[in-house]
Amino acid sequence: MNFSLSKSIEILERTPDVLITMLQNISPDWTSNNEGGETWSAYDIIGHLIHGEKTDWIPRMEIILSDKQDKKFELFDRFAQFEQSKGKSLIQLLDEFKSLRQKNIELLCSKKLTDKDLAEIGIHPAFGEITLCQLLSTWTVHDLNHIAQISRVMAKQYKTDVGPWVEYLRILQL
Amino acid sequence: MNFSLSKSIEILERTPDVLITMLQNISPDWTSNNEGGETWSAYDIIGHLIHGEKTDWIPRMEIILSDKQDKKFELFDRFAQFEQSKGKSLIQLLDEFKSLRQKNIELLCSKKLTDKDLAEIGIHPAFGEITLCQLLSTWTVHDLNHIAQISRVMAKQYKTDVGPWVEYLRILQL
Repeated sequence: MNFSLSKSIEILERTPDVLITMLQNISPDWTSNNEGGETWSAYDIIGHLIHGEKTDWIPRMEIILSDKQDKKFELFDRFAQFEQSKGKSLIQLLDEFKSLRQKNIELLCSKKLTDKDLAEIGIHPAFGEITLCQLLSTWTVHDLNHIAQISRVMAKQYKTDVGPWVEYLRILQL
Repeated sequence: MNFSLSKSIEILERTPDVLITMLQNISPDWTSNNEGGETWSAYDIIGHLIHGEKTDWIPRMEIILSDKQDKKFELFDRFAQFEQSKGKSLIQLLDEFKSLRQKNIELLCSKKLTDKDLAEIGIHPAFGEITLCQLLSTWTVHDLNHIAQISRVMAKQYKTDVGPWVEYLRILQL
């Protein structure tokens, strides 16, 4: 399968509801615990997704599609959520993510991107030239990456409880 | 966090709706492709979850709680879905999984399990003695394992499309 804008949107538009279905009204033990050390909890990950909606995907798309000479992206702050989520409940974060995502998908659709647009480039701080198509593919995979990460963080809360089955459960070995 | 029956049910009861939200009416390219070779597609994984509802978790619980002398579990067939899902649509499989899971949770709740019940043992074909508590923990983690696996299988359909970002997306390296 190769990149398709409509198939990417199929994932992007489902992610908020997937996360709401997984996490809303579940015990905080599942959502506030992490994998130990500096790792992230489900709560932290939702904050990270919100920050991405605000500062990463759409702003970078706008840079790529702009007439500017300098198409260098801003660095993305991977730790912004620790400050920005403060005082907010998980339900508030899930609602905020859903609302930002809806607006971003509307904005994405409003661009009526052509194949030529998808081949336009921006400058990533680490990788150099990347295309809009690669950016939108990454946005899509990034959602799936964090759904998998949330599943793993939650699964690890039972790492010792499964006893010898730990051997069969790949998610507990990652 | 240690095993809790009610917290386990929080995961078990959400999984069918999580999978329906992720997969229902999405393009078959996302759900019928696998990770290459003998790996499983999302469609295959839903069939595997159905087979687990029918032959694994609840039947094994019943063996543990029974008065039988021989508490050895039947071997679980990890490939049954390739035969049993034949001719069924993904939506049919998702509905079947949801309905089986609902009945199994009702049955689980009807047992009104005590701490003594949770410490009862059965004999696993590979591991030997395991407790009911370990079986129910594994059922829970098994759900999360397959949600993560489905996310990974879907993400991999874009492995080349993300370009240099492959380096930052852990899910594409698993």
